[in-house]
Amino acid sequence: MSAAGRPPAVQALAFDTYGTVVDWRRSLLAALERFGERRRVAVDWAAFLAEWKAAYRPGLDRVNRGDAPWMTVDEIYARALEALLPRYGLPPDPADVAELTGAWRRLAPWPDVRAGLERLRRRYVITPLSNASFAGMVHLARFARLPWDCVITAENARCYKPRPEVYQTAAALLGLRPADVLMVAAHNYDLHAARAVGLRTAFVPRPEEHGPGQTTDRAPEAAWDVIATDFGDLADRLGA
Amino acid sequence: MSAAGRPPAVQALAFDTYGTVVDWRRSLLAALERFGERRRVAVDWAAFLAEWKAAYRPGLDRVNRGDAPWMTVDEIYARALEALLPRYGLPPDPADVAELTGAWRRLAPWPDVRAGLERLRRRYVITPLSNASFAGMVHLARFARLPWDCVITAENARCYKPRPEVYQTAAALLGLRPADVLMVAAHNYDLHAARAVGLRTAFVPRPEEHGPGQTTDRAPEAAWDVIATDFGDLADRLGA
Repeated sequence: MSAAGRPPAVQALAFDTYGTVVDWRRSLLAALERFGERRRVAVDWAAFLAEWKAAYRPGLDRVNRGDAPWMTVDEIYARALEALLPRYGLPPDPADVAELTGAWRRLAPWPDVRAGLERLRRRYVITPLSNASFAGMVHLARFARLPWDCVITAENARCYKPRPEVYQTAAALLGLRPADVLMVAAHNYDLHAARAVGLRTAFVPRPEEHGPGQTTDRAPEAAWDVIATDFGDLADRLGA
Repeated sequence: MSAAGRPPAVQALAFDTYGTVVDWRRSLLAALERFGERRRVAVDWAAFLAEWKAAYRPGLDRVNRGDAPWMTVDEIYARALEALLPRYGLPPDPADVAELTGAWRRLAPWPDVRAGLERLRRRYVITPLSNASFAGMVHLARFARLPWDCVITAENARCYKPRPEVYQTAAALLGLRPADVLMVAAHNYDLHAARAVGLRTAFVPRPEEHGPGQTTDRAPEAAWDVIATDFGDLADRLGA
Protein backbone atom coordinates (compact mmCIF):
# COMPACT_ATOMS: atom_id res chain seq x y z
CA MET A 1 0.00 0.00 0.00
CA SER A 2 1.34 3.42 -0.81
CA ALA A 3 1.41 6.06 1.87
CA ALA A 4 -1.37 7.83 -0.04
CA GLY A 5 -3.37 4.61 -0.41
CA ARG A 6 -2.84 4.45 -4.17
CA PRO A 7 0.17 3.17 -6.10
CA PRO A 8 2.36 5.85 -7.69
CA ALA A 9 1.74 6.46 -11.39
CA VAL A 10 5.12 5.47 -12.83
CA GLN A 11 6.25 4.09 -16.17
CA ALA A 12 9.38 2.18 -15.22
CA LEU A 13 10.68 0.19 -12.26
CA ALA A 14 14.40 0.21 -11.38
CA PHE A 15 15.58 -2.59 -9.11
CA ASP A 16 18.51 -2.76 -6.79
CA THR A 17 19.87 -6.22 -7.44
CA TYR A 18 22.30 -7.66 -4.85
CA GLY A 19 20.06 -8.47 -1.91
CA THR A 20 16.86 -7.13 -3.44
CA VAL A 21 16.68 -9.49 -6.44
CA VAL A 22 19.29 -12.15 -5.73
CA ASP A 23 20.25 -14.01 -2.57
CA TRP A 24 23.96 -13.31 -2.99
CA ARG A 25 24.93 -14.73 0.40
CA ARG A 26 23.56 -18.24 0.00
CA SER A 27 24.90 -18.63 -3.56
CA LEU A 28 28.36 -17.32 -2.70
CA LEU A 29 28.58 -19.39 0.46
CA ALA A 30 27.87 -22.51 -1.62
CA ALA A 31 30.51 -21.48 -4.18
CA LEU A 32 33.08 -20.85 -1.45
CA GLU A 33 32.32 -24.18 0.23
CA ARG A 34 32.74 -26.03 -3.07
CA PHE A 35 36.04 -24.21 -3.57
CA GLY A 36 37.18 -25.21 -0.05
CA GLU A 37 36.29 -28.85 -0.64
CA ARG A 38 38.27 -28.92 -3.88
CA ARG A 39 41.23 -27.26 -2.16
CA ARG A 40 40.75 -29.49 0.93
CA VAL A 41 40.94 -26.54 3.30
CA ALA A 42 38.82 -25.92 6.38
CA VAL A 43 37.73 -22.28 6.52
CA ASP A 44 34.82 -20.51 8.23
CA TRP A 45 33.38 -19.47 4.89
CA ALA A 46 30.51 -17.48 6.43
CA ALA A 47 33.04 -15.30 8.25
CA PHE A 48 35.21 -15.15 5.13
CA LEU A 49 32.24 -14.00 3.04
CA ALA A 50 31.18 -11.39 5.60
CA GLU A 51 34.69 -9.95 5.47
CA TRP A 52 34.79 -10.05 1.68
CA LYS A 53 31.40 -8.32 1.35
CA ALA A 54 32.54 -5.72 3.91
CA ALA A 55 35.08 -4.48 1.35
CA TYR A 56 32.24 -3.38 -0.95
CA ARG A 57 31.09 -0.11 0.61
CA PRO A 58 34.55 1.34 1.42
CA GLY A 59 35.68 0.47 -2.13
CA LEU A 60 32.69 2.25 -3.66
CA ASP A 61 33.07 5.23 -1.35
CA ARG A 62 36.70 5.70 -2.40
CA VAL A 63 35.56 5.96 -6.03
CA ASN A 64 32.68 8.29 -5.12
CA ARG A 65 35.01 10.58 -3.15
CA GLY A 66 37.51 10.65 -6.02
CA ASP A 67 40.17 8.92 -3.91
CA ALA A 68 40.35 6.09 -6.45
CA PRO A 69 39.83 6.11 -10.22
CA TRP A 70 36.66 4.58 -11.64
CA MET A 71 36.78 0.83 -11.26
CA THR A 72 34.05 -1.77 -11.43
CA VAL A 73 32.80 -3.72 -8.44
CA ASP A 74 34.36 -6.77 -10.07
CA GLU A 75 37.76 -5.11 -9.64
CA ILE A 76 36.96 -4.02 -6.10
CA TYR A 77 35.97 -7.56 -5.12
CA ALA A 78 39.01 -9.05 -6.87
CA ARG A 79 41.43 -6.75 -5.06
CA ALA A 80 39.72 -7.38 -1.73
CA LEU A 81 39.99 -11.12 -2.33
CA GLU A 82 43.70 -10.88 -3.09
CA ALA A 83 44.16 -9.34 0.36
CA LEU A 84 41.72 -11.65 2.12
CA LEU A 85 42.87 -15.09 0.91
CA PRO A 86 46.31 -14.88 2.59
CA ARG A 87 44.68 -13.87 5.87
CA TYR A 88 42.88 -17.23 5.76
CA GLY A 89 46.09 -19.07 4.91
CA LEU A 90 45.37 -19.38 1.20
CA PRO A 91 47.62 -18.15 -1.64
CA PRO A 92 46.08 -15.34 -3.75
CA ASP A 93 46.18 -17.45 -6.91
CA PRO A 94 44.96 -15.35 -9.90
CA ALA A 95 42.85 -18.23 -11.25
CA ASP A 96 41.13 -18.65 -7.88
CA VAL A 97 40.55 -14.90 -7.63
CA ALA A 98 38.97 -14.89 -11.10
CA GLU A 99 36.83 -17.93 -10.37
CA LEU A 100 35.54 -16.70 -7.02
CA THR A 101 34.95 -13.15 -8.24
CA GLY A 102 33.04 -14.69 -11.16
CA ALA A 103 30.71 -16.34 -8.62
CA TRP A 104 29.08 -12.90 -8.21
CA ARG A 105 27.62 -13.52 -11.70
CA ARG A 106 26.03 -16.82 -10.68
CA LEU A 107 23.59 -15.89 -7.92
CA ALA A 108 20.11 -17.35 -7.41
CA PRO A 109 17.12 -15.01 -7.28
CA TRP A 110 14.80 -15.02 -4.27
CA PRO A 111 11.91 -17.46 -4.93
CA ASP A 112 9.34 -14.72 -5.66
CA VAL A 113 11.48 -12.79 -8.15
CA ARG A 114 11.01 -14.36 -11.58
CA ALA A 115 7.22 -14.67 -11.40
CA GLY A 116 6.95 -11.18 -9.92
CA LEU A 117 9.12 -9.60 -12.61
CA GLU A 118 7.16 -11.35 -15.38
CA ARG A 119 3.96 -9.81 -14.02
CA LEU A 120 5.48 -6.37 -13.50
CA ARG A 121 6.99 -6.35 -16.96
CA ARG A 122 3.58 -6.56 -18.61
CA ARG A 123 2.74 -3.11 -17.32
CA TYR A 124 6.08 -1.41 -16.69
CA VAL A 125 9.54 -1.16 -18.21
CA ILE A 126 11.79 -3.03 -15.78
CA THR A 127 15.53 -2.56 -15.37
CA PRO A 128 18.17 -3.33 -12.78
CA LEU A 129 19.82 -0.27 -11.25
CA SER A 130 22.71 -1.85 -9.46
CA ASN A 131 26.21 -0.97 -8.38
CA ALA A 132 27.30 -4.01 -10.38
CA SER A 133 29.44 -3.72 -13.48
CA PHE A 134 27.38 -3.61 -16.68
CA ALA A 135 28.87 -6.93 -17.86
CA GLY A 136 28.38 -8.46 -14.42
CA MET A 137 24.70 -7.57 -14.52
CA VAL A 138 24.32 -8.93 -18.07
CA HIS A 139 25.78 -12.28 -17.05
CA LEU A 140 23.82 -12.39 -13.80
CA ALA A 141 20.60 -11.78 -15.75
CA ARG A 142 21.45 -14.64 -18.11
CA PHE A 143 22.31 -16.99 -15.25
CA ALA A 144 19.29 -16.12 -13.10
CA ARG A 145 16.93 -15.73 -16.10
CA LEU A 146 15.80 -12.25 -15.09
CA PRO A 147 13.47 -10.82 -17.77
CA TRP A 148 14.80 -7.24 -17.77
CA ASP A 149 13.89 -4.92 -20.61
CA CYS A 150 17.43 -3.51 -20.47
CA VAL A 151 20.41 -3.25 -18.13
CA ILE A 152 21.46 -0.03 -16.39
CA THR A 153 24.14 0.02 -13.69
CA ALA A 154 26.41 2.43 -11.86
CA GLU A 155 28.88 1.85 -14.70
CA ASN A 156 26.61 3.89 -16.98
CA ALA A 157 27.15 6.86 -14.64
CA ARG A 158 30.74 5.95 -13.68
CA CYS A 159 30.00 6.49 -10.01
CA TYR A 160 28.10 4.52 -7.39
CA LYS A 161 24.82 4.67 -5.54
CA PRO A 162 23.93 6.63 -3.50
CA ARG A 163 25.38 9.35 -5.77
CA PRO A 164 22.47 11.18 -7.45
CA GLU A 165 24.01 10.79 -10.91
CA VAL A 166 23.25 7.07 -10.89
CA TYR A 167 19.49 7.56 -10.46
CA GLN A 168 19.46 10.55 -12.80
CA THR A 169 21.31 8.58 -15.48
CA ALA A 170 18.73 5.80 -15.27
CA ALA A 171 15.79 8.17 -15.72
CA ALA A 172 17.54 9.97 -18.57
CA LEU A 173 18.37 6.76 -20.43
CA LEU A 174 14.77 5.62 -20.04
CA GLY A 175 13.63 8.97 -21.46
CA LEU A 176 11.60 9.65 -18.32
CA ARG A 177 11.33 12.24 -15.59
CA PRO A 178 12.60 10.96 -12.22
CA ALA A 179 9.01 10.96 -10.88
CA ASP A 180 8.08 8.41 -13.57
CA VAL A 181 10.57 5.88 -12.18
CA LEU A 182 9.99 3.71 -9.11
CA MET A 183 13.16 2.58 -7.33
CA VAL A 184 12.69 -0.84 -5.73
CA ALA A 185 15.18 -1.81 -3.02
CA ALA A 186 15.66 -3.80 0.16
CA HIS A 187 17.96 -1.07 1.49
CA ASN A 188 16.69 2.15 3.00
CA TYR A 189 19.83 4.12 2.03
CA ASP A 190 19.12 3.43 -1.64
CA LEU A 191 15.55 4.72 -1.36
CA HIS A 192 16.58 7.84 0.57
CA ALA A 193 19.00 8.69 -2.26
CA ALA A 194 16.47 7.89 -4.99
CA ARG A 195 13.80 10.02 -3.32
CA ALA A 196 16.24 12.92 -2.93
CA VAL A 197 16.45 13.22 -6.74
CA GLY A 198 12.73 12.76 -7.32
CA LEU A 199 12.25 9.05 -7.98
CA ARG A 200 9.35 7.20 -6.39
CA THR A 201 10.29 4.49 -3.89
CA ALA A 202 9.31 0.91 -3.03
CA PHE A 203 10.74 -1.03 -0.09
CA VAL A 204 10.82 -4.83 -0.24
CA PRO A 205 12.59 -6.14 2.88
CA ARG A 206 14.94 -9.10 2.57
CA PRO A 207 15.48 -9.82 6.27
CA GLU A 208 17.78 -12.78 5.61
CA GLU A 209 20.04 -11.13 3.04
CA HIS A 210 22.92 -11.09 5.52
CA GLY A 211 21.97 -14.40 7.10
CA PRO A 212 20.36 -15.18 10.44
CA GLY A 213 20.44 -12.38 12.99
CA GLN A 214 20.39 -9.55 10.44
CA THR A 215 19.73 -6.27 12.22
CA THR A 216 19.74 -3.76 9.34
CA ASP A 217 16.99 -2.94 6.84
CA ARG A 218 14.45 -5.17 8.49
CA ALA A 219 11.84 -2.40 8.33
CA PRO A 220 11.15 0.77 6.35
CA GLU A 221 12.84 3.85 7.79
CA ALA A 222 10.56 6.33 6.01
CA ALA A 223 7.11 6.50 4.45
CA TRP A 224 8.17 4.99 1.14
CA ASP A 225 5.59 5.20 -1.66
CA VAL A 226 5.13 1.42 -1.64
CA ILE A 227 6.01 -1.19 0.98
CA ALA A 228 5.67 -4.78 -0.18
CA THR A 229 6.56 -8.14 1.32
CA ASP A 230 7.95 -9.59 -1.91
CA PHE A 231 7.77 -9.10 -5.71
CA GLY A 232 4.39 -10.84 -5.96
CA ASP A 233 2.99 -8.45 -3.38
CA LEU A 234 4.66 -5.57 -5.23
CA ALA A 235 2.89 -6.63 -8.44
CA ASP A 236 -0.42 -6.80 -6.54
CA ARG A 237 0.05 -3.33 -5.10
CA LEU A 238 1.03 -1.87 -8.47
CA GLY A 239 -1.94 -3.47 -10.22
CA ALA A 240 0.29 -5.55 -12.52
CA MET B 1 31.11 -18.87 -43.91
CA SER B 2 33.97 -16.79 -42.61
CA ALA B 3 36.66 -15.63 -44.98
CA ALA B 4 39.01 -18.05 -43.17
CA GLY B 5 36.48 -20.90 -43.42
CA ARG B 6 35.83 -20.91 -39.66
CA PRO B 7 33.56 -18.63 -37.65
CA PRO B 8 35.32 -16.01 -35.53
CA ALA B 9 35.74 -16.89 -31.85
CA VAL B 10 33.68 -14.12 -30.25
CA GLN B 11 31.71 -13.88 -27.01
CA ALA B 12 29.10 -11.29 -27.89
CA LEU B 13 27.11 -10.22 -30.94
CA ALA B 14 26.14 -6.55 -31.45
CA PHE B 15 23.35 -5.92 -33.93
CA ASP B 16 22.56 -2.89 -35.97
CA THR B 17 18.79 -2.63 -35.64
CA TYR B 18 16.97 -0.38 -38.14
CA GLY B 19 17.12 -2.36 -41.38
CA THR B 20 19.18 -5.24 -39.99
CA VAL B 21 16.70 -6.43 -37.34
CA VAL B 22 13.48 -4.60 -38.13
CA ASP B 23 11.74 -3.78 -41.39
CA TRP B 24 11.27 -0.12 -40.53
CA ARG B 25 9.97 0.86 -43.97
CA ARG B 26 6.99 -1.47 -44.14
CA SER B 27 5.90 -0.77 -40.56
CA LEU B 28 6.22 3.00 -40.89
CA LEU B 29 4.48 3.05 -44.25
CA ALA B 30 1.53 1.25 -42.66
CA ALA B 31 1.51 3.72 -39.75
CA LEU B 32 1.62 6.70 -42.12
CA GLU B 33 -1.16 5.27 -44.27
CA ARG B 34 -3.37 4.76 -41.21
CA PHE B 35 -2.63 8.32 -40.18
CA GLY B 36 -3.57 9.59 -43.67
CA GLU B 37 -6.84 7.68 -43.63
CA ARG B 38 -7.79 9.13 -40.26
CA ARG B 39 -6.89 12.63 -41.47
CA ARG B 40 -8.60 11.95 -44.86
CA VAL B 41 -5.61 13.25 -46.79
CA ALA B 42 -4.11 11.77 -49.94
CA VAL B 43 -0.32 11.75 -49.73
CA ASP B 44 2.36 9.68 -51.48
CA TRP B 45 3.46 8.16 -48.17
CA ALA B 46 6.31 6.18 -49.72
CA ALA B 47 7.83 9.42 -51.00
CA PHE B 48 7.07 11.13 -47.69
CA LEU B 49 8.81 8.36 -45.75
CA ALA B 50 11.84 8.38 -48.06
CA GLU B 51 12.21 12.12 -47.42
CA TRP B 52 11.73 11.69 -43.69
CA LYS B 53 14.30 8.91 -43.47
CA ALA B 54 16.70 11.02 -45.56
CA ALA B 55 16.91 13.47 -42.63
CA TYR B 56 18.56 10.77 -40.51
CA ARG B 57 22.15 10.76 -41.76
CA PRO B 58 22.61 14.54 -42.02
CA GLY B 59 21.13 14.95 -38.52
CA LEU B 60 23.54 12.40 -37.07
CA ASP B 61 26.48 13.86 -38.96
CA ARG B 62 25.79 17.32 -37.50
CA VAL B 63 26.01 15.85 -34.00
CA ASN B 64 29.14 13.87 -34.86
CA ARG B 65 30.86 16.96 -36.29
CA GLY B 66 29.94 19.00 -33.22
CA ASP B 67 27.73 21.34 -35.29
CA ALA B 68 24.74 20.40 -33.11
CA PRO B 69 24.54 19.43 -29.43
CA TRP B 70 23.85 15.83 -28.51
CA MET B 71 20.28 14.94 -29.35
CA THR B 72 18.57 11.59 -29.78
CA VAL B 73 17.37 10.26 -33.10
CA ASP B 74 13.85 10.70 -31.72
CA GLU B 75 14.48 14.44 -31.60
CA ILE B 76 16.10 14.43 -35.04
CA TYR B 77 13.10 12.65 -36.56
CA ALA B 78 10.64 14.90 -34.71
CA ARG B 79 12.30 18.07 -35.98
CA ALA B 80 12.51 16.68 -39.51
CA LEU B 81 8.81 15.85 -39.37
CA GLU B 82 7.91 19.36 -38.23
CA ALA B 83 9.57 20.65 -41.39
CA LEU B 84 8.24 17.90 -43.65
CA LEU B 85 4.52 17.91 -42.78
CA PRO B 86 3.88 21.47 -44.10
CA ARG B 87 5.63 20.59 -47.36
CA TYR B 88 2.94 17.94 -47.85
CA GLY B 89 0.17 20.39 -46.94
CA LEU B 90 -0.27 19.15 -43.37
CA PRO B 91 -0.01 21.25 -40.21
CA PRO B 92 2.92 20.30 -37.91
CA ASP B 93 0.58 19.42 -35.05
CA PRO B 94 2.64 18.46 -31.96
CA ALA B 95 0.39 15.48 -31.17
CA ASP B 96 0.80 14.15 -34.73
CA VAL B 97 4.56 14.66 -34.56
CA ALA B 98 4.72 12.73 -31.26
CA GLU B 99 2.49 9.94 -32.58
CA LEU B 100 4.33 9.48 -35.86
CA THR B 101 7.79 9.72 -34.27
CA GLY B 102 6.61 7.10 -31.77
CA ALA B 103 5.92 4.76 -34.69
CA TRP B 104 9.71 4.20 -34.84
CA ARG B 105 9.22 2.20 -31.60
CA ARG B 106 6.62 -0.09 -33.20
CA LEU B 107 8.47 -1.82 -36.02
CA ALA B 108 8.13 -5.45 -37.05
CA PRO B 109 11.24 -7.64 -37.17
CA TRP B 110 12.17 -9.48 -40.37
CA PRO B 111 10.63 -12.99 -40.30
CA ASP B 112 13.91 -14.77 -39.49
CA VAL B 113 14.89 -12.52 -36.57
CA ARG B 114 13.20 -13.84 -33.43
CA ALA B 115 14.03 -17.51 -34.00
CA GLY B 116 17.57 -16.61 -35.05
CA LEU B 117 18.19 -14.46 -31.98
CA GLU B 118 16.82 -17.14 -29.66
CA ARG B 119 19.35 -19.60 -31.12
CA LEU B 120 22.24 -17.15 -31.04
CA ARG B 121 21.48 -16.13 -27.48
CA ARG B 122 22.11 -19.64 -26.20
CA ARG B 123 25.77 -19.33 -27.12
CA TYR B 124 26.48 -15.59 -27.20
CA VAL B 125 25.59 -12.43 -25.33
CA ILE B 126 23.38 -10.50 -27.77
CA THR B 127 22.79 -6.75 -27.74
CA PRO B 128 21.53 -4.13 -30.15
CA LEU B 129 24.13 -1.53 -31.13
CA SER B 130 21.96 1.03 -32.82
CA ASN B 131 21.89 4.75 -33.44
CA ALA B 132 18.48 4.69 -31.74
CA SER B 133 17.85 6.41 -28.44
CA PHE B 134 18.24 4.09 -25.46
CA ALA B 135 14.55 4.44 -24.58
CA GLY B 136 13.56 3.96 -28.21
CA MET B 137 15.46 0.70 -28.36
CA VAL B 138 13.94 -0.48 -25.05
CA HIS B 139 10.43 0.12 -26.35
CA LEU B 140 11.19 -1.38 -29.75
CA ALA B 141 12.51 -4.52 -28.06
CA ARG B 142 9.32 -4.79 -26.01
CA PHE B 143 7.10 -4.26 -29.06
CA ALA B 144 9.00 -6.65 -31.37
CA ARG B 145 9.75 -9.14 -28.57
CA LEU B 146 13.50 -9.13 -29.23
CA PRO B 147 15.28 -11.30 -26.63
CA TRP B 148 18.30 -9.05 -26.04
CA ASP B 149 20.52 -9.62 -23.01
CA CYS B 150 20.84 -5.85 -22.65
CA VAL B 151 20.46 -2.65 -24.64
CA ILE B 152 23.38 -0.54 -25.86
CA THR B 153 22.93 2.36 -28.26
CA ALA B 154 24.74 5.42 -29.55
CA GLU B 155 23.21 7.27 -26.59
CA ASN B 156 25.59 5.38 -24.28
CA ALA B 157 28.49 7.00 -26.17
CA ARG B 158 26.67 10.29 -26.90
CA CYS B 159 27.75 10.20 -30.52
CA TYR B 160 26.67 8.20 -33.54
CA LYS B 161 27.94 5.34 -35.64
CA PRO B 162 30.25 5.27 -37.51
CA ARG B 163 32.20 7.13 -34.78
CA PRO B 164 34.65 4.66 -33.18
CA GLU B 165 33.50 5.57 -29.65
CA VAL B 166 30.17 3.82 -30.22
CA TYR B 167 31.76 0.43 -30.95
CA GLN B 168 34.40 0.93 -28.25
CA THR B 169 31.74 1.81 -25.68
CA ALA B 170 29.84 -1.38 -26.48
CA ALA B 171 32.91 -3.59 -26.03
CA ALA B 172 33.86 -1.79 -22.80
CA LEU B 173 30.37 -2.12 -21.29
CA LEU B 174 30.37 -5.82 -22.17
CA GLY B 175 33.76 -6.16 -20.46
CA LEU B 176 35.29 -7.50 -23.68
CA ARG B 177 38.09 -6.72 -26.08
CA PRO B 178 36.81 -5.42 -29.43
CA ALA B 179 37.96 -8.67 -31.10
CA ASP B 180 35.56 -10.60 -28.85
CA VAL B 181 32.56 -8.76 -30.30
CA LEU B 182 30.95 -9.52 -33.67
CA MET B 183 29.13 -6.57 -35.27
CA VAL B 184 26.16 -7.76 -37.33
CA ALA B 185 24.78 -5.31 -39.88
CA ALA B 186 23.04 -5.00 -43.22
CA HIS B 187 25.11 -1.90 -43.99
CA ASN B 188 28.69 -2.03 -45.18
CA TYR B 189 29.57 1.39 -43.68
CA ASP B 190 28.78 0.06 -40.21
CA LEU B 191 31.05 -2.95 -40.66
CA HIS B 192 33.90 -0.86 -42.08
CA ALA B 193 33.77 1.32 -38.95
CA ALA B 194 33.47 -1.67 -36.59
CA ARG B 195 36.43 -3.40 -38.21
CA ALA B 196 38.52 -0.23 -38.00
CA VAL B 197 38.41 -0.44 -34.20
CA GLY B 198 38.96 -4.18 -34.03
CA LEU B 199 35.50 -5.75 -33.90
CA ARG B 200 34.72 -8.80 -35.99
CA THR B 201 32.12 -8.35 -38.71
CA ALA B 202 29.06 -10.16 -40.09
CA PHE B 203 27.07 -8.97 -43.10
CA VAL B 204 23.42 -9.95 -43.43
CA PRO B 205 21.96 -8.22 -46.50
CA ARG B 206 18.43 -6.83 -46.35
CA PRO B 207 17.94 -6.05 -50.03
CA GLU B 208 14.38 -4.76 -49.55
CA GLU B 209 15.07 -2.48 -46.58
CA HIS B 210 14.51 0.58 -48.75
CA GLY B 211 11.78 -1.03 -50.84
CA PRO B 212 11.80 -2.35 -54.41
CA GLY B 213 14.69 -1.16 -56.54
CA GLN B 214 17.16 -0.78 -53.68
CA THR B 215 20.66 -0.27 -55.07
CA THR B 216 22.77 0.06 -51.91
CA ASP B 217 24.12 -2.65 -49.60
CA ARG B 218 22.87 -5.48 -51.77
CA ALA B 219 26.24 -7.23 -51.50
CA PRO B 220 29.28 -7.24 -49.20
CA GLU B 221 31.88 -4.61 -50.07
CA ALA B 222 34.73 -6.32 -48.23
CA ALA B 223 35.75 -9.77 -46.98
CA TRP B 224 33.69 -9.59 -43.80
CA ASP B 225 34.35 -12.34 -41.26
CA VAL B 226 30.89 -13.83 -41.80
CA ILE B 227 28.40 -13.36 -44.62
CA ALA B 228 24.96 -14.84 -43.99
CA THR B 229 21.64 -14.71 -45.81
CA ASP B 230 19.56 -14.20 -42.66
CA PHE B 231 19.72 -14.72 -38.87
CA GLY B 232 19.00 -18.45 -39.16
CA ASP B 233 21.92 -18.79 -41.54
CA LEU B 234 24.02 -16.65 -39.19
CA ALA B 235 23.23 -19.03 -36.31
CA ASP B 236 24.19 -21.99 -38.53
CA ARG B 237 27.50 -20.40 -39.46
CA LEU B 238 28.30 -19.51 -35.85
CA GLY B 239 27.46 -22.98 -34.62
CA ALA B 240 24.62 -21.73 -32.42
